[in-house]
Amino acid sequence: MKPDLTINPALTRKILTGFIKSEITRVGFTRAVIGLSGGIDSAVSCALAAEALGPQNVLAVRMPYKSSSPDSLEDAEKTAQGLGICLDTIEITPMVDPLIERDREMSKLRKGNLMARSRMIILYDQSEVFKGLVVGTSNKTEILLGYTTLWGDMASAVNPIGDLYKTQLRQLAATLNIPGSVLEKPPSADLWLGQTDEGELGFTYEEVDKLLYLLVDQRCSMEDCLDAGFEKDFVEKVYNRIRRSQYKRMQPIIAKLSTRTVGNDFLYLRDWGT
Amino acid sequence: MKPDLTINPALTRKILTGFIKSEITRVGFTRAVIGLSGGIDSAVSCALAAEALGPQNVLAVRMPYKSSSPDSLEDAEKTAQGLGICLDTIEITPMVDPLIERDREMSKLRKGNLMARSRMIILYDQSEVFKGLVVGTSNKTEILLGYTTLWGDMASAVNPIGDLYKTQLRQLAATLNIPGSVLEKPPSADLWLGQTDEGELGFTYEEVDKLLYLLVDQRCSMEDCLDAGFEKDFVEKVYNRIRRSQYKRMQPIIAKLSTRTVGNDFLYLRDWGT
Repeated sequence: MKPDLTINPALTRKILTGFIKSEITRVGFTRAVIGLSGGIDSAVSCALAAEALGPQNVLAVRMPYKSSSPDSLEDAEKTAQGLGICLDTIEITPMVDPLIERDREMSKLRKGNLMARSRMIILYDQSEVFKGLVVGTSNKTEILLGYTTLWGDMASAVNPIGDLYKTQLRQLAATLNIPGSVLEKPPSADLWLGQTDEGELGFTYEEVDKLLYLLVDQRCSMEDCLDAGFEKDFVEKVYNRIRRSQYKRMQPIIAKLSTRTVGNDFLYLRDWGT
Repeated sequence: MKPDLTINPALTRKILTGFIKSEITRVGFTRAVIGLSGGIDSAVSCALAAEALGPQNVLAVRMPYKSSSPDSLEDAEKTAQGLGICLDTIEITPMVDPLIERDREMSKLRKGNLMARSRMIILYDQSEVFKGLVVGTSNKTEILLGYTTLWGDMASAVNPIGDLYKTQLRQLAATLNIPGSVLEKPPSADLWLGQTDEGELGFTYEEVDKLLYLLVDQRCSMEDCLDAGFEKDFVEKVYNRIRRSQYKRMQPIIAKLSTRTVGNDFLYLRDWGT
């Protein structure tokens, strides 16, 4: 089995703008709020939302921490200007620093989670002000690897890019109105200077997307993946990341006591009421 | 159909302590972190967790805002002392005030959401420090009515009380080691002076729990509920609250593009891998 991650960007774009428009309007909204980091994922979500809803109905919010790169801020601004969407900037530093100051030993992991969750708070607060829904910016690679913060960047109302692997998202991005500097820079959560996703993960998106495609989309076994030429250590590492991060893709587990339990047998409104 | 909300407290307690113990230990943890407000719901979660895991394995965190009632703090302390669990206090004021100060017009709703989500941030950060899972404190009444903050008090790893209506939770609470002042006070989110749940909702838990039990657990139609003696306005109000709050009980909606989409056909680990 050879993994083929080629997408049809024009068709994908049509499906995803249709998705954004229908999911937002069917619940009575016309607008979207999106955290714009200066990276490719959030730029794609903004571009799709602008096309689906009209640029005047999209609010992009930059939420830098004091150590965020000035390049990220500038790239976010160029993206928003190119798309003609509204842009606001709200610093997370005053929200995050009181907690960091309580504990000088705080790990990078804890700081990163604080920042991602503080951004969620601001986006949801701005969604109330702007009367728009929060549009997500997590791609399929991140979601499957659990390379995300639960109740942080994973939180949104609708996510147009959550079924696109990073390498597929790049194919789509190349056809949208996104600045070259955003398309070309190495992916980074921008939590500290020199951080890159691929450095932290220990593998490239090119490699891992092929493996994820076999394991998840093609339902291949670990043995199939070894036969396809992947290293055993790499397959096991990725397999375990998917298993261990399942909790980030779920609602809280509620203890079942009654005949009708939320998250168990009370799941879909279409199964309930008239 | 007559709604009967009577529970067997001893059996319920056995099921819920078993649930906490098995759900936490099966993923390799032994400890729990719980936000303790001074109200009855979080006191019940703490009491159950203390019984399930041992009091030394439970960390209760008080997270007052500057306007929180001193009585709440005292009730939380009495609860923790009675149960013999660890108690920490982390103020949310320094996290919340920078955002409130940016917008003097901020509504009570927005402030309440900021506070609930800031508490989630602290709980999840403490769960990393204490090496415990976050145990939820939302009851079935709140969850069905959407009287909760998405990614705020709704966020937890496991929720032992999410299938108990408020009136059922009171029956269980009466058999646990919880101070009388906690059992007896009117339910309140304690966001401003004199706030009570029942004042805000416009009906009592006694009334609404009976109606919810008919609508949800007994799958009654709205007509059945009118026949059972409920007022039309009340039934419609509650029915619409359940419908409109469905998004708070769901993960973000991901646009489907591939053969295997998270939240759609990639749902359960038991369906995946070996």
